[in-house]
Amino acid sequence: MDINYASIITIGDELLIGQVVDTNSAWMAQELNKIGIPVKHRMAVGDTWDDIWYALDEESKHASIILITGGLGPTSDDITKPLLCKYFGGKLVIDEETLAHVQNIFLSILKRPMLEVNVKQAEVPDVCTVLRNEKGTAPGMLFEKNGKVFISLPGVPHEMKWIMTNVVLPLLPSKFKTTNIEHRTLLTAGIGESFLADLVKEEEAALPSFIKLAYLPNFGMVRLRLTASGDDKALLTESLEKHFVAFKEKVKEFLVIDEDLPIEVVVARLLKEKKATLATAESCTGGYIAHLITSMPGASAYFKGSVVSYDNSIKTNVLHVPESILETVGAVSEETVKIMAESVLEIMDTDYSIAVSGIMGPDGGTPEKPVGTVWIAVAKKGETTTKRFDFRHTRDRNIQLTALNALNMLRITLCG
Amino acid sequence: MDINYASIITIGDELLIGQVVDTNSAWMAQELNKIGIPVKHRMAVGDTWDDIWYALDEESKHASIILITGGLGPTSDDITKPLLCKYFGGKLVIDEETLAHVQNIFLSILKRPMLEVNVKQAEVPDVCTVLRNEKGTAPGMLFEKNGKVFISLPGVPHEMKWIMTNVVLPLLPSKFKTTNIEHRTLLTAGIGESFLADLVKEEEAALPSFIKLAYLPNFGMVRLRLTASGDDKALLTESLEKHFVAFKEKVKEFLVIDEDLPIEVVVARLLKEKKATLATAESCTGGYIAHLITSMPGASAYFKGSVVSYDNSIKTNVLHVPESILETVGAVSEETVKIMAESVLEIMDTDYSIAVSGIMGPDGGTPEKPVGTVWIAVAKKGETTTKRFDFRHTRDRNIQLTALNALNMLRITLCG
Repeated sequence: MDINYASIITIGDELLIGQVVDTNSAWMAQELNKIGIPVKHRMAVGDTWDDIWYALDEESKHASIILITGGLGPTSDDITKPLLCKYFGGKLVIDEETLAHVQNIFLSILKRPMLEVNVKQAEVPDVCTVLRNEKGTAPGMLFEKNGKVFISLPGVPHEMKWIMTNVVLPLLPSKFKTTNIEHRTLLTAGIGESFLADLVKEEEAALPSFIKLAYLPNFGMVRLRLTASGDDKALLTESLEKHFVAFKEKVKEFLVIDEDLPIEVVVARLLKEKKATLATAESCTGGYIAHLITSMPGASAYFKGSVVSYDNSIKTNVLHVPESILETVGAVSEETVKIMAESVLEIMDTDYSIAVSGIMGPDGGTPEKPVGTVWIAVAKKGETTTKRFDFRHTRDRNIQLTALNALNMLRITLCG
Repeated sequence: MDINYASIITIGDELLIGQVVDTNSAWMAQELNKIGIPVKHRMAVGDTWDDIWYALDEESKHASIILITGGLGPTSDDITKPLLCKYFGGKLVIDEETLAHVQNIFLSILKRPMLEVNVKQAEVPDVCTVLRNEKGTAPGMLFEKNGKVFISLPGVPHEMKWIMTNVVLPLLPSKFKTTNIEHRTLLTAGIGESFLADLVKEEEAALPSFIKLAYLPNFGMVRLRLTASGDDKALLTESLEKHFVAFKEKVKEFLVIDEDLPIEVVVARLLKEKKATLATAESCTGGYIAHLITSMPGASAYFKGSVVSYDNSIKTNVLHVPESILETVGAVSEETVKIMAESVLEIMDTDYSIAVSGIMGPDGGTPEKPVGTVWIAVAKKGETTTKRFDFRHTRDRNIQLTALNALNMLRITLCG
């Protein structure tokens, strides 16, 4: 094998009954890519001896690095550790450093006596290298067999991330030759996947074999991604950059940003550049736009707040929408979102504001205003822009589409 | 093979570079479980001929039903259809019904001329059964080989879900003998995984072999799940219920709810039962609590709105927190959240309110109030409860922990 691939095995019945969504694998794949290790497979198996054993056997045929998450908790549904012990031919012994760490967690942080089951968490196969876990009681473990490396990590996301960031990612490049993987992404809005493909067909035909093109449609926007991989980093970067510029020029009419960033980050950057402030008045999105914006560190520099006016009484009492408007044209109307946007701009004394009102479903639709009907307004001093959208999807998708389109309307206003 | 297992193969480089999180598989697994088809593996592979071929070969050794998502878009990064055609020994032909459907989407909905590439979307291998897709242009396809069924679906979530719900799930039980799979879940708060395991160790020892126990810790709460599977449905349900009652009795002190439901659904039920209304005043969660509540259909029956007072000026001007309090004890204090909760209760005229203020990080911490310091208040007329929390995690986790603990405090007030 020329390239050293990684495979990610996630263990847990909860993955196979759909009780949890696996967010660990995507994060791990991103981080491995950054250090030049491509991922071959991702595999999820249940808490069953034979299935885990099979996954270790099978994935080590395809990858040099096998990363395993899950199955290391203190309770007896976890069979991973005894299995790894047997798989690599070791016996379980107490790791004194881990035991001291677990004891410390119980004495100083939880302030409760340790249980017998927690002592067992300090047991590790004597054939592994212990990877310390400062965020929890279960340590990570590294095994080597036939030139392959197997790394077992707890499934709790913040524990897994801590061990990956502080122990595993710094270690891998010293054990394996890595390659160069570079991505460039263009985020577009207002053009469908097939029309976009038609638009860039000449640029696509001109791509060398080491650059791959992909389209990722999501909530009415399409991301176009170029991925280059190979050993000569300088050549790779130069060629990728040249082709990327050609694609960017061709799609410029539809371009939101030339990086793999969500729309809220794009808007945040523009607000910071302009030293401008924002407030939202949200009916149907129920605070989701404010949540997207405040998910980003440093949001307090440009975001002042929001009025979630879910009930009509809040629209009238807090946002000063006259009752006569609600009675005649209704809450989902151009008039209502215009007043909502202008009121919140004044109440919160900001430079820009967003207001949304719509019918997210599944109930509440009428023949004139079916589920998915949404009015969005973006206001700045002296000027308010409004637009009607018709999304016609499920509730969660309608909420997402409303938020992303509202942020995109703000982006256009900020750029205009 | 006695049990007819399913395997889920997801196709796409974006899964292996971590550009998207796979939410399709969890949903599919849940739905398959409901009709009595357990999932053996979930496997993600890239957009590469050999890798997809390998996945089909390998997974058909372990499962009777192989579900494939992704790789069916209109653009040329998709190689799945020609591969399936070759794998099952067919040739690509135009499916007239699909063509008419794609034409209709372009003419009546998109109101744009169809491209050559969209005609290709109506091509299917002549050895497949076409599964109609009312939500998009790419049809699903069903193949049979050596008694196994292979079903290929588009990766766009709402298209995949439509075909699964309307075509695939009704079809599978007629082709395969299904089993019975039943889950019962207890959601607990205020007790760690190992202490919970210690508490129920007698009940665990009494479980028959066909009932499996699992613990799912998440954001400071632990879900305890019992899963029974087997052919005799009546026996299964009776035994599961008996053991479930025993577990429930033992953990009652820590029980949030005896169903697999998120805390916001539990709170929504209690509010509906009491015909009570809620408002939130959110600083550090930035609208996330309001978003969780309004994600649920019918939230307008009990949720009136929110003031997101991210900036201190909103706390003073809208929520009437005196400047003197912000200057002396600060925005993250018992005094501040108490006034925020009481003000929003009055402004929005609700029966209950939640207020939160804290330091989510990564910046903004001080020695006295480090990152993760949060004050939460829950108010009802004449009574306000406050509590300080110290979460010490990353920003996104601190936001989640704050929201879940605020909702749990409201739950306790509603039950009290």
